Amino acid sequence: MKKGQSRNPRLKVIPLGGLEQIGMNITAFEYGESIIVVDCGLAFPEDDMLGIDLVIPDITYLLENKQKVKGFFITHGHEDHIGALPYILKQINVPIYATKLTVGLIDRKLEEHGMLSVTRRKVVKYGMHINAGEFRVEFIKTNHSIQDAAALAIYSPAGVIVHTGDFKVDYTPVFGDAIDLQRFGELGKKGVLAVMCDSTNAERPGFTMSERTVGKALETIFDDHKNSRIIISTFASNVDRVQQIINIAHERNRKVEIEGRSMVNIIETARELGYINIPDNTLISVDELKRYPDERTVLITTGSQGESMAAMSRLANGTHKRISIKPTDTVVFSSNPIPGNEKAISRIINELSMKGADVIFQDVHVSGHACREDIKLIYSLLRPKYSIPIHGEYKHRKAQGAIAYELGIPKENIFLLKSGDVLELNDSDNFAKVTGHVKVGDVMVDGLGVGDVGSIVLKDRQRLGEEGIIIVVLGVDKYDGLLTSEPEVVSRGFVYVKGAANLMDDAREVLKNVIKGFDFTKKDWNRLKLVIKDELGSFVWKETERRPMIIPIIMEV
Amino acid sequence: MKKGQSRNPRLKVIPLGGLEQIGMNITAFEYGESIIVVDCGLAFPEDDMLGIDLVIPDITYLLENKQKVKGFFITHGHEDHIGALPYILKQINVPIYATKLTVGLIDRKLEEHGMLSVTRRKVVKYGMHINAGEFRVEFIKTNHSIQDAAALAIYSPAGVIVHTGDFKVDYTPVFGDAIDLQRFGELGKKGVLAVMCDSTNAERPGFTMSERTVGKALETIFDDHKNSRIIISTFASNVDRVQQIINIAHERNRKVEIEGRSMVNIIETARELGYINIPDNTLISVDELKRYPDERTVLITTGSQGESMAAMSRLANGTHKRISIKPTDTVVFSSNPIPGNEKAISRIINELSMKGADVIFQDVHVSGHACREDIKLIYSLLRPKYSIPIHGEYKHRKAQGAIAYELGIPKENIFLLKSGDVLELNDSDNFAKVTGHVKVGDVMVDGLGVGDVGSIVLKDRQRLGEEGIIIVVLGVDKYDGLLTSEPEVVSRGFVYVKGAANLMDDAREVLKNVIKGFDFTKKDWNRLKLVIKDELGSFVWKETERRPMIIPIIMEV
Repeated sequence: MKKGQSRNPRLKVIPLGGLEQIGMNITAFEYGESIIVVDCGLAFPEDDMLGIDLVIPDITYLLENKQKVKGFFITHGHEDHIGALPYILKQINVPIYATKLTVGLIDRKLEEHGMLSVTRRKVVKYGMHINAGEFRVEFIKTNHSIQDAAALAIYSPAGVIVHTGDFKVDYTPVFGDAIDLQRFGELGKKGVLAVMCDSTNAERPGFTMSERTVGKALETIFDDHKNSRIIISTFASNVDRVQQIINIAHERNRKVEIEGRSMVNIIETARELGYINIPDNTLISVDELKRYPDERTVLITTGSQGESMAAMSRLANGTHKRISIKPTDTVVFSSNPIPGNEKAISRIINELSMKGADVIFQDVHVSGHACREDIKLIYSLLRPKYSIPIHGEYKHRKAQGAIAYELGIPKENIFLLKSGDVLELNDSDNFAKVTGHVKVGDVMVDGLGVGDVGSIVLKDRQRLGEEGIIIVVLGVDKYDGLLTSEPEVVSRGFVYVKGAANLMDDAREVLKNVIKGFDFTKKDWNRLKLVIKDELGSFVWKETERRPMIIPIIMEV
Repeated sequence: MKKGQSRNPRLKVIPLGGLEQIGMNITAFEYGESIIVVDCGLAFPEDDMLGIDLVIPDITYLLENKQKVKGFFITHGHEDHIGALPYILKQINVPIYATKLTVGLIDRKLEEHGMLSVTRRKVVKYGMHINAGEFRVEFIKTNHSIQDAAALAIYSPAGVIVHTGDFKVDYTPVFGDAIDLQRFGELGKKGVLAVMCDSTNAERPGFTMSERTVGKALETIFDDHKNSRIIISTFASNVDRVQQIINIAHERNRKVEIEGRSMVNIIETARELGYINIPDNTLISVDELKRYPDERTVLITTGSQGESMAAMSRLANGTHKRISIKPTDTVVFSSNPIPGNEKAISRIINELSMKGADVIFQDVHVSGHACREDIKLIYSLLRPKYSIPIHGEYKHRKAQGAIAYELGIPKENIFLLKSGDVLELNDSDNFAKVTGHVKVGDVMVDGLGVGDVGSIVLKDRQRLGEEGIIIVVLGVDKYDGLLTSEPEVVSRGFVYVKGAANLMDDAREVLKNVIKGFDFTKKDWNRLKLVIKDELGSFVWKETERRPMIIPIIMEV
């Protein structure tokens, strides 16, 4: 069949982020006059984004089609899926659909931004279908490293797309049911146009282990360290992990203290909503800790990724106000390093070891993402016509593409998209093609500023950070243009000035020569600035092989 | 026996670096009026050392005892063992003793610094003993990821210390002999006071595989990719790896091009000195590449750690002037990521994959450092009285300490030193104790400057890099102190000024108010600067939650 034969519009799949990185997941689905958006996450800044707090997606495309947008459908409550919501909702206020815990976590975020009263949130149960314009969206139970994760079946006139969200297959989850594989099978039997599947672990062979296996490992650690205080660091949002630790502690008559604001908040929300079951008199406050001998306490802390401000970091470097590491402590990292955090984590492990603690950091964690064989299972249940690997760097998505190919999906039906690509799909005429590209990008958040730091500011920050600055101020007479005083030279981040008096003196000499050779009566200050930058820049390079930013300021008085 | 009973001096072991990190290895051994120094390496800058090129050790202690220092004994030619030599030799010019390839690599370095004619280098053969004051030093054959690595047996009147250098046990090395285990056994039988052993892989179970196993893996890759150009990235100094690639290429009738200045240099040195055997007509230049079909060429490149300026990085991001990645290329990373480099390497793998290349990055490398069982072997041959784990972060050294303990060395005989610790040892009276601490530290090299960037400059760089700068210039009359013109406000790295005109206007208003309320006739400019910093700082924080550096400059005209 030929392109254009179908009178009906095609389904457009438009990822607005999340395909060049782990983070900032957001995808628009468009059919005719309807758009729905799946997830709305943030990304953490790259190393070259100096001073940036977080990054949110550029949603120009949604703003240009504001009247079409029916709602946000959120797969689960991790930051890379919900973190941009408060910022984006300020620009486009439509309802949010998500499961109970996910809504609970979103609510906390909206509250912080004072947006709770102006935002519509709808709690969705697994199996429910939500109508949104031309779309219908079904929430399907999955497992992940946070509870209440959902896959979405997105029904459109052009066909059904299954978006897995972040998932793993856990036959024996700590809380609630296993992933609803039956429903995946049923959908597959009826016919699935495309699957958009989590690629995070597509390079890893085998199956992802059940969360319960971590419980077993933790039990062994507790039994091997009966006489010491146990401090366990894990992800703040892994409520099932915290549940297991609390269970093990309770069975062994230990009290539990939770350290770190983000974990306290999430556990509070999970408890209110019934996602964690904490026996009475198990949780204690940091003040109560000293009432119990070490071997009757457990601390659960944030900071398993080496975050410099988190509880574990403060414990390790001795800046925690209330708790000190003792040589008798056992410290457990119930987590794996996220790429990029290895050095920070090593530093903390070294600091803890130097304080004498026994540090355990291997084999006390399982991933929340499906490995290769799990991905094969999902594909085999859904048997989609098209494969659109998502959630991962290119190499991860390529690895999933290879799995899809291995399972019989032809190469031309596998789409490794770029953020911003417009993939048009239609089941009835077998149409599947990237037909365009919309504006996407990183919007940087720095303090209260959203998007006011761009590449020019970042480039300046990089230069300032690596090379420092030299400021030269000249006062000139606004009538005759003549110099009114000696030039001022100030530097920061360049050299330790007290130790480099000669260098700065010589720099002043260079300036004097520039001034001597310059015709001030013409008042061509732009030219003067250029000459100062050039001459002083070459002098400094020759003397130091550094290129500080040079800022000449000409003051007319 | 009691301290002080022995009339003779004790042996002092003083690590001047290398114990808090991987890098900057340098240890002084002192007996009476003699000091010898083992290794003299550099460290690469930590993430918070903005703009710094490299770090060398503070050798204040050696300078204070200059007349005692007899020479540098270098275990092998890696940067973390030789890289600081040109800088340190400028301060303390004594002879260097090392094996042939090591001297060759040091010579290149000295030549770059114009120091070849003023430095004494002595090529030492395995088995040779060098007398140096009260010390005698024997070089013993070991294996490592660079050829000509040596362990040192350091004989002193207080006993024998064996310093392993960086080593692995390779029974089937690509070049030369296996590690001289017999000599280790012989020394052990005679009695070893202490061993200072490489801890890098002390956390890793099992044995380190032979370099030859990488050859096997590479052969399979060549045979599986007969029709594509093969590009292999590895460490510039791993001459044996390059030798194996050249052998495999030659056998399969492929020409080899070497990309990356550092690798070209090292291979040149290795070839001159007979450490690599390159068949005639195998190496070709980049210009000759186009004369051969892809399937008859191999490129060996630097940049396996994701270094942004290295050949592999330029190939991946398309900035290499002569070579472009093609979808038919096979790219092999014959290396493992050094902690901290994971993200940079992932970025390159993604870029290469996006260009269509088949990227292989797992199981094509072996480590150059001994694993747990190898370390046990060395301890069992030497049976030292004392264990001084070196070369590693604290956790690595602690892991070696645990191995030593497991092998029967009592806890009090295992020393996890800090850089700068003075460990005094004497065999005859069983004395072993840290008796003092000398000055040590990081000397930062930035361009031509050595040590002129310290913590103040770094702190300023951090602030400038993360927050930017606002410069405020006021001209005042030097006679009456009155303002001579409107204040100038200039910012860099703070906000994109064109997009934040209001903010900058408001900042100027704040300044005007400060000025209005200030008594200029008193000419208390320090006070004025303080008020400007305070008021402008609070205003900016309130508006943006950022803390740019604020530099007020008062110009008397």
